[in-house]
Amino acid sequence: MVLDKINGPNDIKKLDPEEVIQLSYEIREFLINKLSKTGGHVASNLGVIELTIAIHLICDLPKDKIIWDVGHQSYTHKILTGRKEGFDNLRQFGGMSGFPKRSESDCDVFDTGHSTTSISAALGMAWAREMKNEDYKIFAVIGDGSMTGGMSFEALNNAAELKKNIVIILNDNEMSISKNVGGVSEHLSKLRTSDNYMGLKEDVMGSLEKIPVYGEKIIKQIQKTKSGIKALMIPGMMYEEMGIMYIGPIDGHNINNMVKVLSEASRYQGPVIVHVRTKKGRGFVPAERHPSRFHGSGPFDLEKGLPLNPSKPSYTDIFSTVMRKMGDRDRDIVAITAAMADGTGLKRFSNMFPDRFFDVGIAEQHAVTFAAGLATQGFKPIFAVYSSFLQRAYDQMMHDVCMQKLHVVFAVDRAGLVGADGMTHHGAFDLSYMCQMPNMVVMAPKNKWELSDMVKFAFKYDGPIAIRYPRGEAYSKYKEFRAPVSLGKCEEIFKGDKVLLFAIGTMFKNAIEVGKLMKEDIGQPTIVNVRFAKPLDEEYLIKEANNYKCIVTMEDNVSIGGMGERVNNILYKNGFKGEIINISLPDEFVEHGSVGELQKSLGMDPESIYDKIKDALP
Amino acid sequence: MVLDKINGPNDIKKLDPEEVIQLSYEIREFLINKLSKTGGHVASNLGVIELTIAIHLICDLPKDKIIWDVGHQSYTHKILTGRKEGFDNLRQFGGMSGFPKRSESDCDVFDTGHSTTSISAALGMAWAREMKNEDYKIFAVIGDGSMTGGMSFEALNNAAELKKNIVIILNDNEMSISKNVGGVSEHLSKLRTSDNYMGLKEDVMGSLEKIPVYGEKIIKQIQKTKSGIKALMIPGMMYEEMGIMYIGPIDGHNINNMVKVLSEASRYQGPVIVHVRTKKGRGFVPAERHPSRFHGSGPFDLEKGLPLNPSKPSYTDIFSTVMRKMGDRDRDIVAITAAMADGTGLKRFSNMFPDRFFDVGIAEQHAVTFAAGLATQGFKPIFAVYSSFLQRAYDQMMHDVCMQKLHVVFAVDRAGLVGADGMTHHGAFDLSYMCQMPNMVVMAPKNKWELSDMVKFAFKYDGPIAIRYPRGEAYSKYKEFRAPVSLGKCEEIFKGDKVLLFAIGTMFKNAIEVGKLMKEDIGQPTIVNVRFAKPLDEEYLIKEANNYKCIVTMEDNVSIGGMGERVNNILYKNGFKGEIINISLPDEFVEHGSVGELQKSLGMDPESIYDKIKDALP
Repeated sequence: MVLDKINGPNDIKKLDPEEVIQLSYEIREFLINKLSKTGGHVASNLGVIELTIAIHLICDLPKDKIIWDVGHQSYTHKILTGRKEGFDNLRQFGGMSGFPKRSESDCDVFDTGHSTTSISAALGMAWAREMKNEDYKIFAVIGDGSMTGGMSFEALNNAAELKKNIVIILNDNEMSISKNVGGVSEHLSKLRTSDNYMGLKEDVMGSLEKIPVYGEKIIKQIQKTKSGIKALMIPGMMYEEMGIMYIGPIDGHNINNMVKVLSEASRYQGPVIVHVRTKKGRGFVPAERHPSRFHGSGPFDLEKGLPLNPSKPSYTDIFSTVMRKMGDRDRDIVAITAAMADGTGLKRFSNMFPDRFFDVGIAEQHAVTFAAGLATQGFKPIFAVYSSFLQRAYDQMMHDVCMQKLHVVFAVDRAGLVGADGMTHHGAFDLSYMCQMPNMVVMAPKNKWELSDMVKFAFKYDGPIAIRYPRGEAYSKYKEFRAPVSLGKCEEIFKGDKVLLFAIGTMFKNAIEVGKLMKEDIGQPTIVNVRFAKPLDEEYLIKEANNYKCIVTMEDNVSIGGMGERVNNILYKNGFKGEIINISLPDEFVEHGSVGELQKSLGMDPESIYDKIKDALP
Repeated sequence: MVLDKINGPNDIKKLDPEEVIQLSYEIREFLINKLSKTGGHVASNLGVIELTIAIHLICDLPKDKIIWDVGHQSYTHKILTGRKEGFDNLRQFGGMSGFPKRSESDCDVFDTGHSTTSISAALGMAWAREMKNEDYKIFAVIGDGSMTGGMSFEALNNAAELKKNIVIILNDNEMSISKNVGGVSEHLSKLRTSDNYMGLKEDVMGSLEKIPVYGEKIIKQIQKTKSGIKALMIPGMMYEEMGIMYIGPIDGHNINNMVKVLSEASRYQGPVIVHVRTKKGRGFVPAERHPSRFHGSGPFDLEKGLPLNPSKPSYTDIFSTVMRKMGDRDRDIVAITAAMADGTGLKRFSNMFPDRFFDVGIAEQHAVTFAAGLATQGFKPIFAVYSSFLQRAYDQMMHDVCMQKLHVVFAVDRAGLVGADGMTHHGAFDLSYMCQMPNMVVMAPKNKWELSDMVKFAFKYDGPIAIRYPRGEAYSKYKEFRAPVSLGKCEEIFKGDKVLLFAIGTMFKNAIEVGKLMKEDIGQPTIVNVRFAKPLDEEYLIKEANNYKCIVTMEDNVSIGGMGERVNNILYKNGFKGEIINISLPDEFVEHGSVGELQKSLGMDPESIYDKIKDALP
């Protein structure tokens, strides 16, 4: 095995050319095998094996810097920097992260997870390198999807001005996570067929040269205007127009050619985009065919390419079904995604109502203000988005939606702990950042029936409103408790004495489990499904609180600015003298692992909560 | 006076051509006169008088929609829609807003204040128009500075895909608020001299035509490739490459020509950019010469063009001085602004240390992650930015700075109430949104000496750290209280009994005033300068709280997620039985007016606080 020779950074440079090719095969097999057991980002990593090898062949690590935009495509980089053993417990609790981590290796120079940050970070490093008179290469590897994110444009704009040497590798697989969209995408697709351009250039110049008098004159005229000639000669005009050198497109699976082009590019003085075409899922047929399914995958069957543990209906699935129904029922409903039609469950809506569905690309900021524009004209836009990605649109939610009190619905998926993706993907802050927005209403459902009811409520309500719900299997118990959703009203499920469990969203399930444990000795607690993080049901709390010795708030959001803090304030201001226990995420970034493991480690699992209650009671 | 004939929307269309020209003169004089008394955005509004007139001449209001990006240039629009009387109390408490407000007129279709939102909103409306089979024009008027904001790129990208008819008027005054920067700026400056392009096109095509055989062949070849020919023929290639029609540049002070071009553009099927060149401050020499000074101006002397009430040193001025000193002392310090070198006080730093200063354009997202990149290489970046604009970079602060615990300093200017700019500009949320970020340290100084000490502390500290301070005159009293800044430690200024005033930042001044009122009857309170909103001085509170009958928290930030909520939690958890009064901004968007008037209306002024304390005490 050639792979056996790879045990640390730069080992790859000791291989002969044939071994390098062999290594690419072995890494592909290694990844498919390992990921079939642990799950992970299959398609994106299979697509960049050769590209990663090419970069490593011309790098001296850790001196040279490689920044992986989004970072979920860094597996081969991890293998080549001595971390192949990590793949046995990839994305598991206590195991190796699926993203670059500076804490994991000095070959990881910038932690990533959200898209579109790499060029900005690379530019900062490039400037620092010059100031410190150091000499090293800097590569930012960014997908074509990320190039639609406004932040990449801001960074390119600045890169053009600073003129530092960075190599931006545009990893073009013709999709972000779903299929790519918009003007940039169209621009890139033109470039993909750029043989025409090159041919045109040769033809035109060739023809001109042949013409004795006029020809020369015209060539000179064309050359006089720098941009004119560039446009004839070089695809990637859009980038060239901004002042960024463009090379490509080149085959992202041809290692030798990439080594040549990338070495050349890294010697260029100034920012340069190398356009590399890769294929997601390359070499594993199921992933090539279904790159979306193999974006972030669980363990799968190697032969059939199907999930090993077919998942039970998730909240996303439920949302998907409701949206289909609602779309049918109300023609004013329009749905928006930022490159996540599959992930957010809007795919079905998009198939049934293509004229009322928008994939705006990785562009959360635009998505929100676009929705605001639609809302001013009486439509009912819903933006379905992951909690941690919605952070990108904090200002637009505040400034464009809440300030004008527009009826925009936010379907905030992946709220709370997300599990294996970890730190960058936990939706740990949404209750805090949304509740601090004036005019915003924030809900979370206890089970799948309630998600459905809340979506309906959200479309009936007239103003900014959000529903946040977690990743994974939808809780399906307690269907019988389905009191109509009413603004700012909680739902009392079980009536007990002594202890009141005030649980929001997915923590309701934990409350039920805590209740079961308590029955044995402490007795049945009152269990309240909070429903509205904002407005909180102050009236209920004031009326009921003093009947209890202990009140437990339960939320999967950070403590600061979360539900617990506000409940405490209500309780104390109204003279509650009993014990209060606040269960929440801590004021720190939480690692990856299964949700169960993470909850346990954070004292949020039923047993830990039960123990805390027992300790608190006299 | 022609202006007398303008009393409502569409009145301008009744004027004859000479009257229209006369009107432009009268509006210019009207604005200069009125603004010299009330203050306001002088330069930007003088620049767009003719442009606004041209748009109104081809619009039927309120049917047609004009969206003013940023919105501070909407004064002529307000005059032409029947609001000229409003200019007597422009930006005053209870008076007319300086920004478009849907609540003010049905001719204001989208509230703006922050940059770069107009294309997104326009696109939403354009889609809605088509769905509802309605027929009206949509104009988004956006500055060249805003075009560097990533969100505009996201919107253009989407506009190119949706292909709806919107007219994007690129109001190019060669600056945003300060001078414009970056690749887009360079692109635009090329376009400004685009006579060359047009000449080239004519020359080339003309020459080619003259050549019997080859010529025709070449023309055909060029024409075959749509982009090739476009690049030769049309400036604005960057936008054309994205699939957006580009027209221009045209003179933004020639009404007749603009009417022609804009009518034509509004009939075009698809998104079109009309590039209009205007001059900031046009017609008022002091404003033409010093557009930055006349960006947002106070009342000024009409003759000399100088401020009527020369302002005392502001926190921004103090910051400016400290940065100059620190830049000299520590060569690792680098400063970043997002198109606000003047407003944030970084101008002096930029003059003295041009190689360690970055104006990245209106690009807060990039600014923060760029700073993160610099920090990874051992530099000490400081990003000076207005509180409400920093909201744009919430995710980057969280994901790129705090998660990696990088040493980036945030100088958060215009925190709390900003006065006349109102709702969109108050820094009402920063304590909430920054304190919820793990690893973040958040400070606020009581006076100008402390701002200086805190900047120094921030550069010594190693991790994400923010200093927030308000707009306007720096408080200069109590210089004698200058205990060394120590992480998470508050500063006790006066020792009293019964009542503890726990005041952060600029509210310290109010606490002093409250103290003076209290001396008369209640007695001297203890006054604490909180200094650190995060980490809060829990130790002090626990140790001292029970000595008091009443504790008053004072902050100019919303209550939700703010300092008060967290102080309450600490107090209650430690058995505090006395009264708590929380002074904060309410959970709503606050109007414009002087800070004093606003504080009074919100019960945050010294008298109101004193009254509340008196009521609370037995």
